[in-house]
Amino acid sequence: MIRGEKLYEGKAKIVYTTDDPDKLWVHFKDEATAFDGKKKGVIENKGYLNAQVSSKLFGVLSRNGVPTHFVRLETPRDMIVRKLEIIPVEVVVRNVVAGSMSKRLGIEEGRKLTQPVLEFYYKSDALGDPWVNESHVLALGWAQAAEVEAIRSMALTVNRVLSKHLGNVGILLVDFKLEFGRTSDGTILLGDEISPDTCRLWDVRSGEKLDKDRFRRDMGGVEDAYEEVLRRLS
Amino acid sequence: MIRGEKLYEGKAKIVYTTDDPDKLWVHFKDEATAFDGKKKGVIENKGYLNAQVSSKLFGVLSRNGVPTHFVRLETPRDMIVRKLEIIPVEVVVRNVVAGSMSKRLGIEEGRKLTQPVLEFYYKSDALGDPWVNESHVLALGWAQAAEVEAIRSMALTVNRVLSKHLGNVGILLVDFKLEFGRTSDGTILLGDEISPDTCRLWDVRSGEKLDKDRFRRDMGGVEDAYEEVLRRLS
Repeated sequence: MIRGEKLYEGKAKIVYTTDDPDKLWVHFKDEATAFDGKKKGVIENKGYLNAQVSSKLFGVLSRNGVPTHFVRLETPRDMIVRKLEIIPVEVVVRNVVAGSMSKRLGIEEGRKLTQPVLEFYYKSDALGDPWVNESHVLALGWAQAAEVEAIRSMALTVNRVLSKHLGNVGILLVDFKLEFGRTSDGTILLGDEISPDTCRLWDVRSGEKLDKDRFRRDMGGVEDAYEEVLRRLS
Repeated sequence: MIRGEKLYEGKAKIVYTTDDPDKLWVHFKDEATAFDGKKKGVIENKGYLNAQVSSKLFGVLSRNGVPTHFVRLETPRDMIVRKLEIIPVEVVVRNVVAGSMSKRLGIEEGRKLTQPVLEFYYKSDALGDPWVNESHVLALGWAQAAEVEAIRSMALTVNRVLSKHLGNVGILLVDFKLEFGRTSDGTILLGDEISPDTCRLWDVRSGEKLDKDRFRRDMGGVEDAYEEVLRRLS
C-alpha cells in the first residue's frame, strides 16, 4: 500500500491518505502530551508500542463481534484503517474511579463502581473537550438516536470483552476512551486507538500503573510500563 | 399548621418542621445568590414572588399528572410541602442554549435546540455542583434505575406542560432546574421550587429576560421582572 499526502497531524498520530480511497494510513508517534497539550514529552518507542497494543486489542474486539476501523499493521508502527467520518464525541468508560472523575466528585481513586460509568466529551481542543451527554449529541445533531444507541452498546461490549481479556493477563481495565465514526455506507465502527495512552491499566496484584498516568504524574518507568502491557498481550 | 424547629437554611429558603411529621414548612427568603454563592444580594419581595409563582406552577403540574411535594401556601411566602428524602441530583432541562451550556460548548445564547437537553448535576456546594449523568447516579447508588427513569420522564413532562402554559402568557421557557425526592413510601415527587430563580424565562416578543439572569448580570429591574411573571400567571 502506498502512503499518500498527510491529512492531519494530531498529538499522538499522523494520518495519511493511501492509494485506496476507503483506507487511511495512521502513523503512531513517540510524542506524548497531557492536560490538553500543556504538558509535552517523548516516550521512547511509544509509537511502536501503541500500534502493537492497539492492533492486538482491535483483533480481540473484532473476534468478539465489535466492528472496528482496523485493517492491518503495515509497518510495526503504522496501521491501515478504514476511512471514517469521525463522530466528534469521545466516549469514556469507567470501571474504577480515577483521574478527573475522582477529582470532580471527591471520590478516592481506586473505588470500584457497581456498574460501568459512561461519559461523553465533545472533541474540541479549542473548548478543552467539554463534557456532554447523549441529549447534547442528539440536540446538536452530532449523531442520530440509533447511532448513539449503537455507540453506547458497543462501548459496553468493548468494556466487557477487554476487561476479561486484560484480566486474563493480570491487568485491571480501570477506564478508557473510545472514538467512533461512520463508513461511507453509514455503518458505525470503533476508531482511533486502544493503548496505554487511552486506557488506565493497573496491575491486578500490585496496583502498579501501566499507562499514561506514569507520564502525567512524572512517575518514571513509562516505557517499561507500556512494554509490559505489550509483553502480557503477546 | 404550627411551624416547628428550623431544619435547614439554604441560600433562598428556610425549611422548618411542622406538627405533621409528613409535612415541612418552607419559608421563601428575599436573599439572592449566584455563582456558587460568590455573588450575594437582596431582591425586594423575591420570597413572596417565588412562593406565589411556585405554587401556581406546582398547581398546573399537579393538574397535568405530575406529582409534586406542594401541599398549599400557608402564608403569602410560606409553603407547606410533603417531606421528602431528597435525591442529591439537580436536573436541568434546556430548550434554548443559554448560560453555562453556551459558554461550555461555545454556542451563542438563544439557539433553539431541536430537542430538549437534560443535564444532571450532583448537589454538593463543597464540590461546586459538578456535572454527572445517569450512569454516575446509578453507579454511585444515588438512585435506582426505575427512579432515574421516572425522574427523566417527569422532567420531560414538566417541560412540555410548563412550556405550553408559559407560552400561553407570552413567556419562552428557555431552561430550568428541578429537584426530586422520595416520600416515606418511596414515591418520587417533584420538589424544591419553580420560579424565576430556577428558570430562564424570556418574553416571547421582546426577548427580555424575566428571571435571575437580571441579578446575575447586573441588568437591573429584577423585582419588576419577577413581578411581571407572577402578573402573567395570575
